[in-house]
Amino acid sequence: MSAVVGVIMGSKSDWDTMKLACDVLEELGIEYEKKVVSAHRTPDLMFEYAESAVERGLKVIIAGAGGAAHLPGMVAAKTSLPVIGVPVKSSNLSGLDSLLSIVQMPGGIPVATVAIGNAGGTNAGLLAAQMLGAFDPALQARVEARRERIKQEVLASSETL
Amino acid sequence: MSAVVGVIMGSKSDWDTMKLACDVLEELGIEYEKKVVSAHRTPDLMFEYAESAVERGLKVIIAGAGGAAHLPGMVAAKTSLPVIGVPVKSSNLSGLDSLLSIVQMPGGIPVATVAIGNAGGTNAGLLAAQMLGAFDPALQARVEARRERIKQEVLASSETL
Amino acid sequence: MSAVVGVIMGSKSDWDTMKLACDVLEELGIEYEKKVVSAHRTPDLMFEYAESAVERGLKVIIAGAGGAAHLPGMVAAKTSLPVIGVPVKSSNLSGLDSLLSIVQMPGGIPVATVAIGNAGGTNAGLLAAQMLGAFDPALQARVEARRERIKQEVLASSETL
Amino acid sequence: MSAVVGVIMGSKSDWDTMKLACDVLEELGIEYEKKVVSAHRTPDLMFEYAESAVERGLKVIIAGAGGAAHLPGMVAAKTSLPVIGVPVKSSNLSGLDSLLSIVQMPGGIPVATVAIGNAGGTNAGLLAAQMLGAFDPALQARVEARRERIKQEVLASSETL
Amino acid sequence: MSAVVGVIMGSKSDWDTMKLACDVLEELGIEYEKKVVSAHRTPDLMFEYAESAVERGLKVIIAGAGGAAHLPGMVAAKTSLPVIGVPVKSSNLSGLDSLLSIVQMPGGIPVATVAIGNAGGTNAGLLAAQMLGAFDPALQARVEARRERIKQEVLASSETL
Amino acid sequence: MSAVVGVIMGSKSDWDTMKLACDVLEELGIEYEKKVVSAHRTPDLMFEYAESAVERGLKVIIAGAGGAAHLPGMVAAKTSLPVIGVPVKSSNLSGLDSLLSIVQMPGGIPVATVAIGNAGGTNAGLLAAQMLGAFDPALQARVEARRERIKQEVLASSETL
Amino acid sequence: MSAVVGVIMGSKSDWDTMKLACDVLEELGIEYEKKVVSAHRTPDLMFEYAESAVERGLKVIIAGAGGAAHLPGMVAAKTSLPVIGVPVKSSNLSGLDSLLSIVQMPGGIPVATVAIGNAGGTNAGLLAAQMLGAFDPALQARVEARRERIKQEVLASSETL
Amino acid sequence: MSAVVGVIMGSKSDWDTMKLACDVLEELGIEYEKKVVSAHRTPDLMFEYAESAVERGLKVIIAGAGGAAHLPGMVAAKTSLPVIGVPVKSSNLSGLDSLLSIVQMPGGIPVATVAIGNAGGTNAGLLAAQMLGAFDPALQARVEARRERIKQEVLASSETL
Repeated sequence: MSAVVGVIMGSKSDWDTMKLACDVLEELGIEYEKKVVSAHRTPDLMFEYAESAVERGLKVIIAGAGGAAHLPGMVAAKTSLPVIGVPVKSSNLSGLDSLLSIVQMPGGIPVATVAIGNAGGTNAGLLAAQMLGAFDPALQARVEARRERIKQEVLASSETL
Repeated sequence: MSAVVGVIMGSKSDWDTMKLACDVLEELGIEYEKKVVSAHRTPDLMFEYAESAVERGLKVIIAGAGGAAHLPGMVAAKTSLPVIGVPVKSSNLSGLDSLLSIVQMPGGIPVATVAIGNAGGTNAGLLAAQMLGAFDPALQARVEARRERIKQEVLASSETL
Repeated sequence: MSAVVGVIMGSKSDWDTMKLACDVLEELGIEYEKKVVSAHRTPDLMFEYAESAVERGLKVIIAGAGGAAHLPGMVAAKTSLPVIGVPVKSSNLSGLDSLLSIVQMPGGIPVATVAIGNAGGTNAGLLAAQMLGAFDPALQARVEARRERIKQEVLASSETL
Repeated sequence: MSAVVGVIMGSKSDWDTMKLACDVLEELGIEYEKKVVSAHRTPDLMFEYAESAVERGLKVIIAGAGGAAHLPGMVAAKTSLPVIGVPVKSSNLSGLDSLLSIVQMPGGIPVATVAIGNAGGTNAGLLAAQMLGAFDPALQARVEARRERIKQEVLASSETL
Repeated sequence: MSAVVGVIMGSKSDWDTMKLACDVLEELGIEYEKKVVSAHRTPDLMFEYAESAVERGLKVIIAGAGGAAHLPGMVAAKTSLPVIGVPVKSSNLSGLDSLLSIVQMPGGIPVATVAIGNAGGTNAGLLAAQMLGAFDPALQARVEARRERIKQEVLASSETL
Repeated sequence: MSAVVGVIMGSKSDWDTMKLACDVLEELGIEYEKKVVSAHRTPDLMFEYAESAVERGLKVIIAGAGGAAHLPGMVAAKTSLPVIGVPVKSSNLSGLDSLLSIVQMPGGIPVATVAIGNAGGTNAGLLAAQMLGAFDPALQARVEARRERIKQEVLASSETL
Repeated sequence: MSAVVGVIMGSKSDWDTMKLACDVLEELGIEYEKKVVSAHRTPDLMFEYAESAVERGLKVIIAGAGGAAHLPGMVAAKTSLPVIGVPVKSSNLSGLDSLLSIVQMPGGIPVATVAIGNAGGTNAGLLAAQMLGAFDPALQARVEARRERIKQEVLASSETL
Repeated sequence: MSAVVGVIMGSKSDWDTMKLACDVLEELGIEYEKKVVSAHRTPDLMFEYAESAVERGLKVIIAGAGGAAHLPGMVAAKTSLPVIGVPVKSSNLSGLDSLLSIVQMPGGIPVATVAIGNAGGTNAGLLAAQMLGAFDPALQARVEARRERIKQEVLASSETL
């Protein structure tokens, strides 16, 4: 079965964050592919990746980048698939630059932005699952089950304060 | 035909921004419903809205709010449908508070955040369309056609500098 | 004797900060209860907790959370008891996101916000004590005595520069 | 009957915001007094005001100020009554300076901070009412009734989108 | 004679700022071309523009954009000519988002960033002139003469205080 | 000979920064006194300190504090001596809160604010010396000599790149 | 009698703010001179101005500038007189850039920074007066009298709420 | 052969960042000189350096500084060569102060600003190379070859996720 989610990142150094998205996709049984695609260092590859995404069967793209983070927005400019942007924590401004570079897209080309850093990595995977789950009741059920499990963990943690 | 997108907002004063999302949905032929649902002033309604969303046939929820903007995140906590959050421009901090309140969700419950203010309103409608379009080639084609039209407008505008 | 202050937090990881509130309450002889209650992961528990607070005899609720910190504001939406919000330091934006998410509540539903992080933890306990002390001269005297003790510590510390 | 809430502000120019607190107190039938008390221009008056607050019968103090807003914190340093701080919108930094100057109090002396500007003005009045209402069921019922009324307004507003 | 400076902008609404760059270029007798090229709405045109810049004889490119301003960085990724980025003032965050999106480029692909808004528009034209002037003594002399003229204006303005 | 500069700080934890001010004063042969004086924990001492400063022969006061840093401004409110404010680095917001709380004084009561943290500590000592030096040519000469020495250090450091 | 305070500003557009400093100096009977001196457009004049300040009899320099505000710091680098920096409100970042450019001086060269904008203009004049007043009891008395007058105005304003 | 690029920095502590610019210049075979030149501690040297830059054969100046970073802007005020400014990461505000102090230059005197910290160090060297390369096809080719090499590294890194 071929990938329905593409996970890309601007640099291998983004992998620690983006791996969390992949972990969620695996946990929920969603086929995905992963790749380093840099807006600034491999711009042509980025365009090819985005342009071929629909025909390759992708339904969602998750793109993570830091600093002047142009990858999610540029991929979004080249595909009409929904693009989830993950603002990777940057070394100097803690990801505030990444966040603003990703979320403040002009009217016409949206990027579905999640939280800065690791929470964003995990949530990018979940958001992709929820988009797919809206058309896949079995997947939606697995998302619900994951939520139930985490709820139980929260309840249990309260006993240990 | 029943609504597949729910558009909600924390206050009627958010309507100027949220109407832009509705405009896009109408333009693209997507059935939607709209409602004022306040996280802080009608919390029970908010929970009922979110809890019943799947069974009522919604596939995506768009939620706009300003300031300590809790609506998108709380709705996301109560449904496994994808929730798009629109940070409405706030009167004192220009929507930076709205943005951070919406986007910085903890790992586990994502909100697909778009830009502050009117660009975000328009893009929320488009992002919903793109999520649906991934499973609806005719809609995806309408999204593509809209992009082509805007591209032509940009090209034409260059002549008038 | 039953609890008059409820101390809740969005995650067990908030405990280091919230324990400081509990320490103050114990020091001042105020009955309290503590619990992990997550706005996003246990939303129904949160509503039940807030709805039953008055009848269970609580007079004040202290709620700590980080990032898109919705717990204090949502609890405040569901009870007319005063709610003190503690912005827990977040990993990427140092608690500025927590602060804005808690303090920028819309007109109608206030949250009594204290400082980011540990100072806020301690001060949440003291603020609760001061609210109760306004109606309990003995407690008010204990708060005054604590202040006097700290004043003496400051004066003494000056000798050791 | 004598005032139980003291409403003070650093400058007469803060009145537009602080009047909203007074409006709420009047609406809810709470006795209050109001005064311009400047931390920087009338520091001795400020200390006298704070020192005499308990014996004059106040139960809560609401203090509003802008910019390097020292009034709430300094009053809090001189009384063990709960002090609510209102960050008045400043002309250059939109009240972010007011907010940080009020909320970031060191451990030991809390200020119950509400939102910047007008929302904070209204909420300061409500927060005072909720503190008092925890010990006054009739007042608490009036707060609840006010919430119910606003909830109905929100529900009605949804019909007019 | 053909253009040596290319002035591009993401939207016609950037023209008020970018016109100031053109004004300087005209004043200093530098051939230039101007065009609306949107990173997000005309991405292919952007790539063609950047790729053909060297062979078309351009020596410098000036690119202005606002919000999630990707145009300068993406053009810089596709040409080894120096690219000057102008952060156009954005409607909600006053151009701070534009600035960070342009200046925080990763190591490998620089953008020569100037001030937000109109000062940046003027300075982009001057910076281009100074780059060219380093290899064109006559142009360098015109830049120096412009500075001398402005210096005299400053000195004269002092008399009118 | 009695102290002409008073160095005070809100907490003993500010000493690492404030010691740098004292080091400069000693190096330049200026008599000073040092003390922990907390705006919030020893407010009466603060007022007494400021009120008696002129008669005790002080010419300048240096006051350091962090977070909601009220000490410099409140001392300035109680003396017409020049007050230098040092924004001590705070644990969560890196001293931005300290800076805004000190520098944004309302028209009428100035505080001479220096840089956040250690640079500010050193510069507070130097600024006091320069204020005194304007009326003490020998001291002014020592300030100049210190500058010359540092200039030589800079020049020498260049050889070691 | 010759000027003891020099008031300079980077542009004539800063005059509205800097005039407030001059107003205070006049009101308090302090001789001053005023001039437009631009760090960037008249750098040599700036250096000459600073270098000759001591011998011309100045005791304090007040320098106002906006944006990348280098005037106060550069003048401070060229004279050992105390330099008061006024961060003029900038058009895009509301003076936050001006403030940071002025206050964050490295250890060795202090600038006495006052508030952004008009409050800073007034306070720069007062701070100069307080520096001079430390060595001039009559002037110090006039400063005290001005404070007393303003205190009375505050007290009176309270009657009109 | 004499230096065509001058690399200067405000303090030896900036060398870790500025060395990266020098590394790039060496790698690309560009002659350069390096020096510590402090705007505040060696202002006369700074002016001499800038004034003599053209006649000494420099074509570009790279200037790095942190905090109230005045070096790039003041050098730009004294030469019509293009000046590249590197905002060195500062200890308290992470280089945001450095960035705003460098980039927000007034209309008339531009500074070509690059990213905060190490990315900016590397990019300053590359930007200088690109300015020179616009007039030196062999150098431009070396810049292109460097980009191709980095692109291959990115592609290879993708295999190791």
